Amino acid sequence: MDDFRLAPLDASDDKLHEECGVFGVFGHDDAAALTALGLHALQHRGQEAAGIVAFDGAHFAVERHVGLVGDNFTRKSVIDQLTGPYAIGHTRYSTAGGAGLRNIQPMFAEFTGGGFAVAHNGNLTNAGVLKRELQRRGSIFQSTSDTEVIIHLIATSIHGRLLDRFVDAIRRIEGAYSLICLTEKKMIGCRDPLGVRPLVLGRLDGSYILASETCALDIIGADYVRDLDPGELVVITDKGLESLRPFENARSRFCIFEYVYFARPDSVVDGRGVYGVRKRIGAELAHESHVPADIVVPVPDSGVPAAIGYAEAAGLPFELGIIRNHYVGRTFIEPTDAIRHMGVKLKHNANSAILAGRRVVLVDDSIVRGTTSRKIVEMVRAAGAAEVHMRIASPPTTDACFYGVDTPEKSKLIASQLTIEEMREFIKADSLAFLSIDGLYRAVGEAGRDPAMPRFCDACFTGDYPTRLADQEEREPVRAIARFAEAS
Amino acid sequence: MDDFRLAPLDASDDKLHEECGVFGVFGHDDAAALTALGLHALQHRGQEAAGIVAFDGAHFAVERHVGLVGDNFTRKSVIDQLTGPYAIGHTRYSTAGGAGLRNIQPMFAEFTGGGFAVAHNGNLTNAGVLKRELQRRGSIFQSTSDTEVIIHLIATSIHGRLLDRFVDAIRRIEGAYSLICLTEKKMIGCRDPLGVRPLVLGRLDGSYILASETCALDIIGADYVRDLDPGELVVITDKGLESLRPFENARSRFCIFEYVYFARPDSVVDGRGVYGVRKRIGAELAHESHVPADIVVPVPDSGVPAAIGYAEAAGLPFELGIIRNHYVGRTFIEPTDAIRHMGVKLKHNANSAILAGRRVVLVDDSIVRGTTSRKIVEMVRAAGAAEVHMRIASPPTTDACFYGVDTPEKSKLIASQLTIEEMREFIKADSLAFLSIDGLYRAVGEAGRDPAMPRFCDACFTGDYPTRLADQEEREPVRAIARFAEAS
Amino acid sequence: MDDFRLAPLDASDDKLHEECGVFGVFGHDDAAALTALGLHALQHRGQEAAGIVAFDGAHFAVERHVGLVGDNFTRKSVIDQLTGPYAIGHTRYSTAGGAGLRNIQPMFAEFTGGGFAVAHNGNLTNAGVLKRELQRRGSIFQSTSDTEVIIHLIATSIHGRLLDRFVDAIRRIEGAYSLICLTEKKMIGCRDPLGVRPLVLGRLDGSYILASETCALDIIGADYVRDLDPGELVVITDKGLESLRPFENARSRFCIFEYVYFARPDSVVDGRGVYGVRKRIGAELAHESHVPADIVVPVPDSGVPAAIGYAEAAGLPFELGIIRNHYVGRTFIEPTDAIRHMGVKLKHNANSAILAGRRVVLVDDSIVRGTTSRKIVEMVRAAGAAEVHMRIASPPTTDACFYGVDTPEKSKLIASQLTIEEMREFIKADSLAFLSIDGLYRAVGEAGRDPAMPRFCDACFTGDYPTRLADQEEREPVRAIARFAEAS
Amino acid sequence: MDDFRLAPLDASDDKLHEECGVFGVFGHDDAAALTALGLHALQHRGQEAAGIVAFDGAHFAVERHVGLVGDNFTRKSVIDQLTGPYAIGHTRYSTAGGAGLRNIQPMFAEFTGGGFAVAHNGNLTNAGVLKRELQRRGSIFQSTSDTEVIIHLIATSIHGRLLDRFVDAIRRIEGAYSLICLTEKKMIGCRDPLGVRPLVLGRLDGSYILASETCALDIIGADYVRDLDPGELVVITDKGLESLRPFENARSRFCIFEYVYFARPDSVVDGRGVYGVRKRIGAELAHESHVPADIVVPVPDSGVPAAIGYAEAAGLPFELGIIRNHYVGRTFIEPTDAIRHMGVKLKHNANSAILAGRRVVLVDDSIVRGTTSRKIVEMVRAAGAAEVHMRIASPPTTDACFYGVDTPEKSKLIASQLTIEEMREFIKADSLAFLSIDGLYRAVGEAGRDPAMPRFCDACFTGDYPTRLADQEEREPVRAIARFAEAS
Repeated sequence: MDDFRLAPLDASDDKLHEECGVFGVFGHDDAAALTALGLHALQHRGQEAAGIVAFDGAHFAVERHVGLVGDNFTRKSVIDQLTGPYAIGHTRYSTAGGAGLRNIQPMFAEFTGGGFAVAHNGNLTNAGVLKRELQRRGSIFQSTSDTEVIIHLIATSIHGRLLDRFVDAIRRIEGAYSLICLTEKKMIGCRDPLGVRPLVLGRLDGSYILASETCALDIIGADYVRDLDPGELVVITDKGLESLRPFENARSRFCIFEYVYFARPDSVVDGRGVYGVRKRIGAELAHESHVPADIVVPVPDSGVPAAIGYAEAAGLPFELGIIRNHYVGRTFIEPTDAIRHMGVKLKHNANSAILAGRRVVLVDDSIVRGTTSRKIVEMVRAAGAAEVHMRIASPPTTDACFYGVDTPEKSKLIASQLTIEEMREFIKADSLAFLSIDGLYRAVGEAGRDPAMPRFCDACFTGDYPTRLADQEEREPVRAIARFAEAS
Repeated sequence: MDDFRLAPLDASDDKLHEECGVFGVFGHDDAAALTALGLHALQHRGQEAAGIVAFDGAHFAVERHVGLVGDNFTRKSVIDQLTGPYAIGHTRYSTAGGAGLRNIQPMFAEFTGGGFAVAHNGNLTNAGVLKRELQRRGSIFQSTSDTEVIIHLIATSIHGRLLDRFVDAIRRIEGAYSLICLTEKKMIGCRDPLGVRPLVLGRLDGSYILASETCALDIIGADYVRDLDPGELVVITDKGLESLRPFENARSRFCIFEYVYFARPDSVVDGRGVYGVRKRIGAELAHESHVPADIVVPVPDSGVPAAIGYAEAAGLPFELGIIRNHYVGRTFIEPTDAIRHMGVKLKHNANSAILAGRRVVLVDDSIVRGTTSRKIVEMVRAAGAAEVHMRIASPPTTDACFYGVDTPEKSKLIASQLTIEEMREFIKADSLAFLSIDGLYRAVGEAGRDPAMPRFCDACFTGDYPTRLADQEEREPVRAIARFAEAS
Repeated sequence: MDDFRLAPLDASDDKLHEECGVFGVFGHDDAAALTALGLHALQHRGQEAAGIVAFDGAHFAVERHVGLVGDNFTRKSVIDQLTGPYAIGHTRYSTAGGAGLRNIQPMFAEFTGGGFAVAHNGNLTNAGVLKRELQRRGSIFQSTSDTEVIIHLIATSIHGRLLDRFVDAIRRIEGAYSLICLTEKKMIGCRDPLGVRPLVLGRLDGSYILASETCALDIIGADYVRDLDPGELVVITDKGLESLRPFENARSRFCIFEYVYFARPDSVVDGRGVYGVRKRIGAELAHESHVPADIVVPVPDSGVPAAIGYAEAAGLPFELGIIRNHYVGRTFIEPTDAIRHMGVKLKHNANSAILAGRRVVLVDDSIVRGTTSRKIVEMVRAAGAAEVHMRIASPPTTDACFYGVDTPEKSKLIASQLTIEEMREFIKADSLAFLSIDGLYRAVGEAGRDPAMPRFCDACFTGDYPTRLADQEEREPVRAIARFAEAS
Repeated sequence: MDDFRLAPLDASDDKLHEECGVFGVFGHDDAAALTALGLHALQHRGQEAAGIVAFDGAHFAVERHVGLVGDNFTRKSVIDQLTGPYAIGHTRYSTAGGAGLRNIQPMFAEFTGGGFAVAHNGNLTNAGVLKRELQRRGSIFQSTSDTEVIIHLIATSIHGRLLDRFVDAIRRIEGAYSLICLTEKKMIGCRDPLGVRPLVLGRLDGSYILASETCALDIIGADYVRDLDPGELVVITDKGLESLRPFENARSRFCIFEYVYFARPDSVVDGRGVYGVRKRIGAELAHESHVPADIVVPVPDSGVPAAIGYAEAAGLPFELGIIRNHYVGRTFIEPTDAIRHMGVKLKHNANSAILAGRRVVLVDDSIVRGTTSRKIVEMVRAAGAAEVHMRIASPPTTDACFYGVDTPEKSKLIASQLTIEEMREFIKADSLAFLSIDGLYRAVGEAGRDPAMPRFCDACFTGDYPTRLADQEEREPVRAIARFAEAS
């Protein structure tokens, strides 16, 4: 799910951001409280806002709040509003400038046939085209979210039964989507034909659970059943679960970046433990780009597993040379200039007692703009490190994601503009190395990347997008003209 | 600084808590913003509330807020209230049931001679005795904080000059106190004669800084000058710094628990890097209580350095077998019962891909009540661990602290009630070992503990309190009588 | 504008309530601030919530707030959001249980042709029928307000130009509506074909103003131009004002209750000063139902002008025998039981120094349920009045209003259930008299009521509804069945 | 009760303001709810903030809130905090710039002998002198309120019993004070020796009530017993009421302005009904300054009773020619400039249908700065009045009040600077007349004012202050010097 509007990332937080986590419970007395817990476990997938829709057999109740799940959905007064054994929830990362409450999911609509709620992880690549078409027919949009397009497609479908209307709708959308929907009778789970975003099925005390990651099953003690297949649609009712395959050509192109950064290390996605993959990434990295050094230091927290893997493979000590301040609160909401200039130190401090005089291998998961990396290297050097060797646990990030990850424009991605040597110079490291794309595929258990039929979506590293990009293609000419106008 | 009222710890958060961090800047244009940053770096010493008092040469301004520094003191509207080149700040951990805004520090009073602000880390052991005496003479108390006792002692001193009145006041108080005070002319820093709580001096652009730990100097790029000595009083004015020694018998009994848990790993306290001490603690622990195992897993985050030290010393792999959810927000403010029962999982999840089938050495910093340890062991075992060996990076915590640390009553401390074998049974580990008190002293660089003249305050491990406990002694008879009445 | 959901009136506030005031400015630098002032002057038409939409030539800005205009729209931070020379606003009285922010007007939608905002005073009588039809076609409703029906009718109109679509829409709606709309080029004002609700046109510094009442022109110093005609549609653009007459059979049936109670006494509506009409009502009442007495006392504040008129006509002294407490604040939001039982005294106190021993003519504007009248009579008698003669400045209110006034169901209207003598007994007055319907028509300057073609909508007194009541007719059978089921 | 700090009145609200209302209940199950109601009835005496202290036999509970009683003390959550059968309350008018919550009354202190709460209506004239003396002895002040002086005087008294300490304290203070105090055993009521401010005793269901005005007894249905005498101290315990006379020379100098403006028209103060006094004031004014005219129009709401009296005495029609908007909300908290310039119209509108072509007698209660009067006259004339004759229901206000009324400095009082003819010119009226001081005394039932021994405090009209003004005398020299410095 993504807003149409693109906004620059906060430069002080130089990471790609997964935009959503989704969760649903069908048939449990504590459905809303379990959903709150599930969303809490998925908080790393989106920290800006969260929402839960519950159904008690007669009425739908909706609670949407800006802020962390743990700040808003642990209050009895909130959970008490969300009565009934059916609930779905959503946690989101909002692009800056996003339009407040009306874009918080789950979205809800009253159809003639009853209420319908939907939570969406992913991003449609033809939402703009569809939206204009719907508006011309008289649909009125309340949000800037592409998820609302799905709702209007259902509302205006010529079919009769809600499930037929839903299938009608998803056959018209393109892009990445893991959806959890709640109607008065059913919970529906659905992955796009490429299965770009994750969605797993679990069970707890006889009720069904859907969730973005297995860590959300763990928190409530639910059993993991299986991942949904790409293009699979499961319909859960009081009578049980039915699986549909509405797409002919579903083949898996799961997002490989989920392994690199997005997924929680204790999750098992697509059959692989994330923590283990990251350690193997670190080991691959050590093999590919060995450098004489004294210690291996992770950029916390995301670089830790790869750094452990690197240290083991390289036979070097693993040390916490950078300490992270976990009490960040809402620091960046409205900082003073003075604080803004202090930059990265609000979150990290270099531990000079460890670093002084040492040759340091610094392990981070990825480089987006490079500004944070530069500050980290500078900080480590200022703490006395003799040498700083930056090792990145993924290939260079050269291309934007259009599948539900908040990426800056291509021109802002340092790896799309500079060579590796230029990047090294920019971040002022003594050496810099990225993991190769084949190394990354090896870490997830493949022999390497098959360019003819890659097993994953790796567009951010390769520019090889597995779907049409209808909205993007419309924008490009406009931009070209604008650039021309500026230049002339 | 502590309230008179004692309140039980939240059982879900089974740690001892440092109660305060203090910070001050004398003579810098951005004094308040720097203080906010310093307090942010000291947030681990108290997360409940924070306050800053600033002076602009004419007026004192005060801002006190419940919540994190990063939530309240980064707003321009707040910092803009705090004009002037002089500022002191305080961040506090509040005991449950604490009385809201009026106990948030720094405290401020208007004396005949002008305004006076004070920030206090520590706890007075004769505050109750002094308070009753002051009330009998007509002093009216506005808070339940023992810090206010210091203010009234200054106000009612028979001396003329403010500094003389201040010295008069601190000569009457007993217990632990690192104080930073701000008057219209001076910033005063002061440690109690035993130097139980830390206080360091730094410099930035010609201005003086006082702070609880060096990590608060690092965040603003200030230079570390030195620790204040036990019983030392520094008076900073526009003319410079003057050091006074108002106590005859100052000798160091620094709190050894600061090394175990309170201080941030990147701080250097009393001349020793905390991270290094913790790794040596882990190594000592490995030597003292070796056990055959496959992996070493820390209880995050506080157990990490000791676990690294243990793993290195034992030659075992270090693994993140427990993942911490960092988005805890205000989870525990008003949880539903359902969530309360989920307990420790809100914060931690066991990584079964790592743990399954392994013999695990689990490293934690301390055990207070034991309830959390039991849940952690249970969780690790449920994730498939073959054996769980708990190793604690400190001696058994047998006695309450009266020097500014929030401890449960002695009877609630598991180590005061059970033998180590009984504790092992309670937490259901396969084995349990604590570091010895001599091992702890070795880790900080001593030969061992000299019972005749211990180098540190280690009362929580030994019951050997380095000061009188006047308030406590008054309460004890009452309790004894109450117990007698209950029993008969 | 009314919610579909009907909710009981607060028994402690036994009045009919106008549900809305509307206001618009086209072409003035301070459009939003002027609109805030206009809404403030119209606050008596709705105190629950208010909203303003402004347009700056490029973007629409929307601010909607629960509470008084003077509490929300005087803050610079709010007005500064509402940039541009075009603005419309709305203030509403919400029925209890109303659904919060999403029903606050003006409503706003993005059409393919651009943004469209609408503020509505009145109520549609076929909104339910239309809504179901629109939903069947795929329209998705976001509110429970009938105003949204108008927006969807415009969106789904088959016409091309926005103005044609708008005319298309209003030709399909039935009921009472004074509308002010804002598009990117125009401000549109419109009254239903019967002109049930008021709407006046004014000018200020060359810009056009639309408002519910002239008092909203006075507050900003605007000149009154004229009332819009029933069924008239004015389109205001940068080029000036154009008047359209899209209905064939427009004839005036202005709401006569606006004179009795709704309109502000300093407004001139439909060509008559409200204060003067009310005094004439009092005079008619004195002539129709003279009674020997010592003083004439108004029930404040609405009974004051009629009491002055009565006192003058009867040659009796006018006295403030009941004092109103103007600091009512939000008294009734969440009262304690104790306070709820104190009832009417929170607002009124009888002045026994005036009342004791006197024969009192008590003048009130209307009786809805009768509960408040009973308390008032009791209070006046408890203050020592020798006799209490209640005189009501309108005919008995026997029927519900479906044109934008919040009335209880017919069965809750005391005058629909009891004879005048029974009502007298219920309220425990010594005598009770209502103004006759002819007397009311005389007070507004007519010879009397012509039953064949009444000059006003007086349905609340006569049950003679000037339009179809499509939604109501659908509900009635259901209710009849429900009553039958209950009885059997 | 007044802050030490003086601040200018909001020019848009050109009235003198009573600064407080006080209320207390001893021995009633609903003590706090009754107190809330009593304060609500006294809201006209102070709208800025209110507080209640309740005692349940074991604990004192305190609730203080900025805003109206009806906004804050009707919530169950608030009243439920205030348990117990003993409660006192206070409502205050804050001078601009006042220092927030810490000055809201009742004030509360813990003495060695137990808790003590006090609510104060009035102002001490030697609070500054006493405060400095107390500070020199070591007392620390938490507020800028002079009421705190009383508390410290009690705390530092050399006497033993609390009642003796209280008498000791009030013998040292000078000025105006009606106090209600609550201890663990007693409720104390007390008026200063001149009885400047009102305080009445009532009974309800066997419990005692103390209140500023009788309207606060009426609202809860309590019986009026009597006014406290000047200098009287009543001590109410479970055993009943005891009256003490701690002052030798008590004689009545009740504030005559209470009749002119402060008291509510339905109150009976000092034995006279306020509404009746105001009507007689209007009659006296008509006799003293008759002018040919067509209608008598009050400046609402305070001018209404005098206008009725004037109209009756002059044989002219009484008309509501100016309509007041009662929905003022918090209009003046943060107005935009645009709104600020609209000025008086936010509250008032002239009813041109009444005024046009008429010769108008405009009746207001007083003139402070004259700025509002000028706007009112201008507004009435703009509405078409042929002549505007301003009649003021009090003598010219020439001097500041130091007894608990918020007055501007003498130099800002128009009547201290200009002759009546100059004032007429300033406000642009056709004629202007004030009531004579003897006329005012006649209206309250005296033969006239006896300059040797005036029956009332009329210092604001005469400059004849009935007490020493110790603080004021200290300030004057300083001001004289400042003026000299400015001039030279």
